[in-house]
Amino acid sequence: MPGLPCFAVLQYAGQGFQGWQKQRAARTVQGELERVLERLVGRRVVTHAAGRTDAGVHAIGQVASFKVPARWQPEELLRALNALLPPDVWVDRVGRSPAGFHARRSATGRAYRYVVGCDRASASPFRRPFEWALGLPLDDRLLHGSAEAFLGEHDFRSFSAVGQDKPHYRCVITRAEWQARERGQGFIFHVEADRFLHRMVRFLVGTMVDVARGRRPVGDVAQLLSVRDNAGASPPAPPEGLYLMHVRYPTIDEGAQP
Amino acid sequence: MPGLPCFAVLQYAGQGFQGWQKQRAARTVQGELERVLERLVGRRVVTHAAGRTDAGVHAIGQVASFKVPARWQPEELLRALNALLPPDVWVDRVGRSPAGFHARRSATGRAYRYVVGCDRASASPFRRPFEWALGLPLDDRLLHGSAEAFLGEHDFRSFSAVGQDKPHYRCVITRAEWQARERGQGFIFHVEADRFLHRMVRFLVGTMVDVARGRRPVGDVAQLLSVRDNAGASPPAPPEGLYLMHVRYPTIDEGAQP
Repeated sequence: MPGLPCFAVLQYAGQGFQGWQKQRAARTVQGELERVLERLVGRRVVTHAAGRTDAGVHAIGQVASFKVPARWQPEELLRALNALLPPDVWVDRVGRSPAGFHARRSATGRAYRYVVGCDRASASPFRRPFEWALGLPLDDRLLHGSAEAFLGEHDFRSFSAVGQDKPHYRCVITRAEWQARERGQGFIFHVEADRFLHRMVRFLVGTMVDVARGRRPVGDVAQLLSVRDNAGASPPAPPEGLYLMHVRYPTIDEGAQP
Repeated sequence: MPGLPCFAVLQYAGQGFQGWQKQRAARTVQGELERVLERLVGRRVVTHAAGRTDAGVHAIGQVASFKVPARWQPEELLRALNALLPPDVWVDRVGRSPAGFHARRSATGRAYRYVVGCDRASASPFRRPFEWALGLPLDDRLLHGSAEAFLGEHDFRSFSAVGQDKPHYRCVITRAEWQARERGQGFIFHVEADRFLHRMVRFLVGTMVDVARGRRPVGDVAQLLSVRDNAGASPPAPPEGLYLMHVRYPTIDEGAQP
């Protein structure tokens, strides 16, 4: 398709979407973005995202790539997109990208956060849509201990949705760190890797939280990594705690790490 | 109606409600609360709220009073209410109240907050439902200067919705203070008074923000107070920035000031 290659950095609140990927009969972020782009430029625009987030998952730094006619300047496109997009999607930045740039295939790293609420008030209407309202105390040493086991290169088949036919399941995790939130509200898991498998962050968090609430021994983490079979993992943590924070590219600077 | 008098401290996110007060064909907080209470206790329960918040206004510390059969213990009622209420209403506390207690008539003070977003990112989907996404800089000295004029006892007819037939329009404001938010995100207005007129906080904020963005002189505030006529006030600030924070009673301790 002709046109100049562009990228957009997007934020969206996940609760109103059946995920990123366009579907015939469901509201999705890609569906909304392509509908608005088509209305603006007067022809169909195909978009690609760095991470195809699932239903309910939030984004602070999702990156989408697409092509638009050369008359569209990035600043003008940014304003027009935000004027037409619904209030639960917002474009933080638009820029030109090098020829051949593809938001998913060109990415060399991704950063996610997962927010867990441990206090009673995590169920309040101001927090519940934006975190896992667990409402139970967690042992922070067990959280830290289980996260450390994930650092480095591993086969993460045990921590991904089944039914994926991938050439391989290896990911290199460069950061896996739990941070205590203020006033005993719970914890935030910060994780960065070259790539993530489907539902991987939610499977990692589900298992670590089970360890930290005393439901399974911390040794299970290393054991699960070695068996390379999803059957033993804890259920994935719910989508409302997960945020795609940042995507890394060697070719563009898509904004400072939030 | 027989039963023991109780109070509940409620939080709700305003965007899903046509305000507190029950209406025949609209979703309201009172409507949801009375529906759930009736289902629990098996008969109609009438509730009264400290502040009849408008459509879109949030609450962190709304107080409702009602009567339930004596067999219901407060802790049991708290759990049952939170199990049945929709996710955008949440009960923080339930307690017994003295005979004759009425959430609105017994209240001797109310505290509200109004949150203004001055940066571009106030339009993001994580902030926009919870603040006035103004996206413009404000002069903080003009904010502070205009707030000071409201302190003390005044007739606030100029800053209330028209068409109210009140015995009088005097309110005693004991706190009227603007606080800068972190990272240049904007400002929070903290206001406390014995009583508030309909839309009063939103009219106060609408006028102060017009002063602080240079649309009208700071002297207008004192002048508007003296004319006692709503015609000259700026339009009310939008509901999504407003929070009912706390209600004060001489007879019950309904929880620490948030």
